[in-house]
Amino acid sequence: MELYSKDISSLIEELGALPGIGKKSAERMAFHIINLPHDRVKRLSDSIIHAKENAHYCRECCTLTDADCCPICSNPKRNHGQIMVVENPRDLAAYEKTGKYDGVYHVLHGAISPMNGIGPGDIRLKELISRLEGDVDEVIIATNSSLEGETTAMYISKLIKPAGIKVTRIASGVPVGGDLEYIDEVTLLRALEGRTEL
Amino acid sequence: MELYSKDISSLIEELGALPGIGKKSAERMAFHIINLPHDRVKRLSDSIIHAKENAHYCRECCTLTDADCCPICSNPKRNHGQIMVVENPRDLAAYEKTGKYDGVYHVLHGAISPMNGIGPGDIRLKELISRLEGDVDEVIIATNSSLEGETTAMYISKLIKPAGIKVTRIASGVPVGGDLEYIDEVTLLRALEGRTEL
Repeated sequence: MELYSKDISSLIEELGALPGIGKKSAERMAFHIINLPHDRVKRLSDSIIHAKENAHYCRECCTLTDADCCPICSNPKRNHGQIMVVENPRDLAAYEKTGKYDGVYHVLHGAISPMNGIGPGDIRLKELISRLEGDVDEVIIATNSSLEGETTAMYISKLIKPAGIKVTRIASGVPVGGDLEYIDEVTLLRALEGRTEL
Repeated sequence: MELYSKDISSLIEELGALPGIGKKSAERMAFHIINLPHDRVKRLSDSIIHAKENAHYCRECCTLTDADCCPICSNPKRNHGQIMVVENPRDLAAYEKTGKYDGVYHVLHGAISPMNGIGPGDIRLKELISRLEGDVDEVIIATNSSLEGETTAMYISKLIKPAGIKVTRIASGVPVGGDLEYIDEVTLLRALEGRTEL
């Protein structure tokens, strides 16, 4: 037997298909939405449509934006000779939140993952290469510290280095505030290899 | 500085206002939605609008349904003399999933909470009382085992008992599979008080 009416079930199903949302959360969200005032529900529904319709890739860095060129790439105060390569717009946002990086970005929209059939042609690598024809001093690879992220970093570094451009990789190590006894061995070894003089 | 473009920020904000969704999850959901195909996005947005437009209270039990009377209340095979009182449609669904309860329900849409300014007039109590004029043998109070749920249970029981209708409360105790050492004292005492003979 159906526990909820058709429309409510459809909503629960649609919400449950979102990442990180299980059946229970979807139910909770669905009933919350049904109990919202009509204008709030309309706003939520509209925001979904608008974000989808207006979001496209920045012609420089490929992040998602509603302008032709994103606010970072069109900012003349940023150092356009320093490009940080990230996997997705959320990683870009994470570094932007630090407020200390004044270079620009390049968003790959993924990482190379032979296991999942994602090759170099499936991420925004071509766009990165064409940007390097300009005046670029350094490419900072800030892909995740996962197998896919490392593979991608290695691939990009091999691709770019011959062109004589400096390629760096963000450091792996113990997170600030991290307790050594709870850190895995690989990270501990990375932290040791990457030690700096005081 | 804005980390994301206007439309994306609005979507993140709207999603972040849903229950149990923090900033990070909202970001993750937003980018997932933007990367979905257009028809999927349309379906999600439509399902929100449809569920809101078509959901209303069942004229019998006050659960949310798209018909005049919900499938449970309109099922002649259910025992209409046994009414289980729950706080919300998700609690109804929880008992329906057991597949063993064949009575009907009454959904209060909340619980009495003087702390939050929710009095007996703010939940669907009047509708319950008017149902009792019919042929009812038992009212099973299945509100949550929280302060609000207990207060509501107490209030309903005092209201109904004088009419000579049997009022029961679902048992409090150790959850099946629960480990005694991790159960709080109040629950342990409830389990002791509610012990049954073997």
